[in-house]
Amino acid sequence: MPNYNRSSDGTIESAFVALSDPTRRAVIQALSGGPASVSELAGPFAMALPSFTQHLGVLESAGLIVSKKKGRTRICALNPQALQNAEAWLAAHRRQWEERFDRMQAHLENVTKDNSNE
Amino acid sequence: MPNYNRSSDGTIESAFVALSDPTRRAVIQALSGGPASVSELAGPFAMALPSFTQHLGVLESAGLIVSKKKGRTRICALNPQALQNAEAWLAAHRRQWEERFDRMQAHLENVTKDNSNE
Repeated sequence: MPNYNRSSDGTIESAFVALSDPTRRAVIQALSGGPASVSELAGPFAMALPSFTQHLGVLESAGLIVSKKKGRTRICALNPQALQNAEAWLAAHRRQWEERFDRMQAHLENVTKDNSNE
Repeated sequence: MPNYNRSSDGTIESAFVALSDPTRRAVIQALSGGPASVSELAGPFAMALPSFTQHLGVLESAGLIVSKKKGRTRICALNPQALQNAEAWLAAHRRQWEERFDRMQAHLENVTKDNSNE
């Protein structure tokens, strides 16, 4: 999407801060169905437009969404790469834990086997 | 881990709020290498212990870590299931977006083929 505006710092820090708010998660949920204009996105929220666009700004700074002007309308879209980066952070720590757990389990099985062979 | 204390609401809301703080992410990173006591975890942080244990409380309420008392020591451990829940939330929205993108691409290819056959 070369025409999309990407003014993002794209860090894990900013991604998780952005994801910690229910309005911003609802925007991600809405955009997972496809791109939408700011007013389409704002529709379901009982929120003043400036507050809502501030939420969009946090999502865009985090790199989770991208946006472009189309005439007088701003169209927003999901940036799947940023979601994948956050997934990768979580998966890396979960896998490290699980691998350690598997190694411990294998070690215990070996100890049990050795003891029963004695 | 039946002896671990699980006083968690385990929501996506509380997981992402917990993950939005750098100290709490550092705790997750440390625990991915294996269980640790509160004082072992607190060691690297220039932070008063009550503030640090508050961070552990947020992680435990979110279900991301579990803890148990062992004598006078509290041992913390990662709860991989909660990390996986957050991963699943992100993956579901990313995949929905990607599937929509693939369908759109396939549709455009069909339109191009039809036009070149006319």
